[in-house]
Amino acid sequence: MKTKLILLIMTCFAPIMVSGQNEIQHDAEHYVLLSQHQEKWKAEDKEVANKLSKFQKNNKGKKPNIIYVLIDDVGFGEFGSPLLNNVRGYETPNLNNFATEGLTFSRMYTEPSCTPTRTAFLTGRLPVRSHMLEPKIVPPEATGLNKDEVTIAEVLSQAGYNTVHVGKWHQGDIAQSYPHNQGFDEASFAMHNQATFNFMTNESEQDRWPYNISQTIDENPYILDENFRPRDWILGIDGKKGEQAKEWGVEPGEELTYEYYYKLNDHHQDIAIEQLKRLAKEDKPFFLNYWPLYPVDFSRADDLPRTKNGGSWVGRMAQLDGWIGDLLTEVENLGIADNTIIVIMGDNGPMVQALGSSGYTDMIYRGYKGQTLEGGIRVAAFARWPKMIEAGSLAGDIVHVTDLYTTFAQIAGATDYIPRDRIVDGVDQTSLLLNGDGYSRRDYVHMYNGPHLEATMKQQFKVHWPAAGTPAFALPIYNLLRDPREMTPLVVRGMWTVGYFEEMLERHMAFKQKYPDRKETRGLPYEDISNLRPETKEFIERYLQRQEIIGE
Amino acid sequence: MKTKLILLIMTCFAPIMVSGQNEIQHDAEHYVLLSQHQEKWKAEDKEVANKLSKFQKNNKGKKPNIIYVLIDDVGFGEFGSPLLNNVRGYETPNLNNFATEGLTFSRMYTEPSCTPTRTAFLTGRLPVRSHMLEPKIVPPEATGLNKDEVTIAEVLSQAGYNTVHVGKWHQGDIAQSYPHNQGFDEASFAMHNQATFNFMTNESEQDRWPYNISQTIDENPYILDENFRPRDWILGIDGKKGEQAKEWGVEPGEELTYEYYYKLNDHHQDIAIEQLKRLAKEDKPFFLNYWPLYPVDFSRADDLPRTKNGGSWVGRMAQLDGWIGDLLTEVENLGIADNTIIVIMGDNGPMVQALGSSGYTDMIYRGYKGQTLEGGIRVAAFARWPKMIEAGSLAGDIVHVTDLYTTFAQIAGATDYIPRDRIVDGVDQTSLLLNGDGYSRRDYVHMYNGPHLEATMKQQFKVHWPAAGTPAFALPIYNLLRDPREMTPLVVRGMWTVGYFEEMLERHMAFKQKYPDRKETRGLPYEDISNLRPETKEFIERYLQRQEIIGE
Repeated sequence: MKTKLILLIMTCFAPIMVSGQNEIQHDAEHYVLLSQHQEKWKAEDKEVANKLSKFQKNNKGKKPNIIYVLIDDVGFGEFGSPLLNNVRGYETPNLNNFATEGLTFSRMYTEPSCTPTRTAFLTGRLPVRSHMLEPKIVPPEATGLNKDEVTIAEVLSQAGYNTVHVGKWHQGDIAQSYPHNQGFDEASFAMHNQATFNFMTNESEQDRWPYNISQTIDENPYILDENFRPRDWILGIDGKKGEQAKEWGVEPGEELTYEYYYKLNDHHQDIAIEQLKRLAKEDKPFFLNYWPLYPVDFSRADDLPRTKNGGSWVGRMAQLDGWIGDLLTEVENLGIADNTIIVIMGDNGPMVQALGSSGYTDMIYRGYKGQTLEGGIRVAAFARWPKMIEAGSLAGDIVHVTDLYTTFAQIAGATDYIPRDRIVDGVDQTSLLLNGDGYSRRDYVHMYNGPHLEATMKQQFKVHWPAAGTPAFALPIYNLLRDPREMTPLVVRGMWTVGYFEEMLERHMAFKQKYPDRKETRGLPYEDISNLRPETKEFIERYLQRQEIIGE
Repeated sequence: MKTKLILLIMTCFAPIMVSGQNEIQHDAEHYVLLSQHQEKWKAEDKEVANKLSKFQKNNKGKKPNIIYVLIDDVGFGEFGSPLLNNVRGYETPNLNNFATEGLTFSRMYTEPSCTPTRTAFLTGRLPVRSHMLEPKIVPPEATGLNKDEVTIAEVLSQAGYNTVHVGKWHQGDIAQSYPHNQGFDEASFAMHNQATFNFMTNESEQDRWPYNISQTIDENPYILDENFRPRDWILGIDGKKGEQAKEWGVEPGEELTYEYYYKLNDHHQDIAIEQLKRLAKEDKPFFLNYWPLYPVDFSRADDLPRTKNGGSWVGRMAQLDGWIGDLLTEVENLGIADNTIIVIMGDNGPMVQALGSSGYTDMIYRGYKGQTLEGGIRVAAFARWPKMIEAGSLAGDIVHVTDLYTTFAQIAGATDYIPRDRIVDGVDQTSLLLNGDGYSRRDYVHMYNGPHLEATMKQQFKVHWPAAGTPAFALPIYNLLRDPREMTPLVVRGMWTVGYFEEMLERHMAFKQKYPDRKETRGLPYEDISNLRPETKEFIERYLQRQEIIGE
């Protein structure tokens, strides 16, 4: 009864209760937990603050460095566990070793695909709030992350951090969305996602039809006119805050090959290591955001490390393990291991559409990238911070990728720079990092797929939101501990949770009413690039003409 | 071409080649591998022999003790991995710790259910060879393990071991199949499987209809006449070699309750510890075979350890973890840890028919007990032998439960007592234990389900044998590394394996022709028990009358 009453009060008054104070505005469910755990959390926060200030004191007054490595399309168990390596027939020894040196998250949630997960991390907010749902595969996107979103790079910059982004970006192709315009001092990034490469070379056209079988076909009668190869799109960009960007690597008129994709990946790895060396020497602490494009690779990739599995992406994963190993060795050699928190994780589940030749598959959890089944949104995730985070520890608590935003801000003493005029979904998980399992500040996640709320998790229960009008007793609720593959919805035994889930939804909607989602941000693609190729300029002109004719 | 030629020669002549020598007779595929690896294996065997003799010398001339713990219905990943514990919401800290002290097998195969797996271990042979397919659930079974099968207990006894069996047996209810008549000096065992208990008490009748929902129903109008409770069946037996057995625990005329099942489990655990203490003090080395009945439990079990999962069998698993922990502590306290090899494993995949309330489910691999999908036959398995087996190591090689027969015999210097007049499927895996991953002597398994050959594995490939006449290109072959859940059979890319699988089958059949399977062994149930209750005698009389009337 008492809980019910609190819930009711929260539903009606929470937005009022929390606004007007200078506190970060969280989503509704946070205030239910806050009302239950306020005293405990206060005590923990005090202890956390002590630990952080002690760390800073012992570190000559310098705040800890932050390295965040986000790996493309690797789900739960795909690295960090030798046993699960064996299940799949490949090895990730460097990442497995990293896992033993830190904390393994067994319930880290992302969003179901690349763009929204990355937005969630960058903004600390559900990506639906900034309308970063998933840009088009084929350029131009003419959309991207809005300049008014406050990224973790902006937050950390204000708190005195040097900030660098390297690798995948996937936050749009309009100037305001470029990383060096979103708070990073320097950035070297891919303009689009990897699939774009699938359309750019003559080789890819040969591979495309029929995909997964034609890899030995040298000639293809259906090949398009060579002039239709869109070699006018942009691959890679190097940028600095306040400056025009520069396209990387491609000469005007040049024919593109898969080789460019490999070179771009090599470039990112080289830059990551170079930047690491540079940043380590600076007086300021740093935030290095490294988002490799590998293992995802739509090329033929016949020069891969050998694995028992033999799949092409699996080979890239083995290669990437070596690269991350090199990065970690460099951290060691630079003598900054102890004052650097490193988080390494996947950005969503496996892209199993490429099952045949990639060697990828779902494993424990059902579902793939693009789905809100656990397989699509639960990822391998690990955090290391020697002497601060317990080596070899394991947390079964729920964490969501947005939490890293708030947590990194907390660790960097930068929470003052988190905006107060909007919902920030990420909650502070510093206590979980420093105290371990059982100290999470959330036991819930709302999971959107594009604009639709598809699932909500609370503790071990998960509802797949059904079509409107579905009878309450038929609300498909799964017990994830007893039914990790979400095969058998509870009915009789799920009844008691139905009401709670419906209240959660109601509270969430009430908060959305107060803080509505942003509309899509539109713009002109490829602006503010100093060395645009003539063909790229023509491509933009065609795009503008097309807009005049068909609108968009 | 060369390999093809060797295979052909093996197929036609191998039975002749290997008979006539005083070597253990293995199945056909072994001789293919032998021809490929003969020199390497010889060198390894020499090294293994040196290590074993060195061990014995350092152990005052005494051979190592052997403890084998076989846990009922726990599949791959169900203990030994904290990460996978988290997936399911329970903890097995003692077993996980045991795993870190020894070798984890990531590809240990059993048979798809209890009886055949246990026969496979006891005889080193595929259970179809001794016609131990799966006894009836409802007593009397009137069948069991034939006296002419040579069990691991007989082999080890001849090599000077004290041998004790405790717990589940499930090898029939005829006298020749009792463990103390199959080579064990002493035995304390359950006469039937756990399901039998489901029919024996008034409580169970109330729970049975409808199972999984009625657990709160106190009265049931459909309850059978009380006189129909088969309280004349035998629960537990204590026996000694050469003596009549004694029924354990039930007084004549007594009404049975679930409590008896719990008491029987407690009894086995107590006896296992007592026997361990006794055996450790003897001059001879020992073989202790402990096969707990838990976690499988068809009772209401409302007094279980609490877990997040909350399932009843999961609770029993947590309880069992404590029990195994006690056993391991006793091994430590007795000072015999270093001279004892301990293998702990599941006997087949989870019994997911009891999903709702048990908390069990399949996890990484698809399929359940009773199925030859990986989920039914691939189990959690670990071996510890300090200083001999590398702590924290992991083997992805294929091992089959029959291999333990030959391997334990090798470790005990007892291979001379393995019979030469029949196929022994178990191959010697001592080199794998002592050298680690990559040293398995098999890359194949033939997997029967009852009398039918359902699947064959070779390296990462697996065929589900289809109905006769299925076109060769449609032979459903799975790549277990890329498709661990056996969802997508290979066609185009599976073609090249089809021929090999068909040759394997042909070779296997040729060997079976030379060494035919045994027919079912029939007998009178419950013979040679000194204290049979009057009601049990009546039950046997009814059985004999029934035989006269309907035959069986």
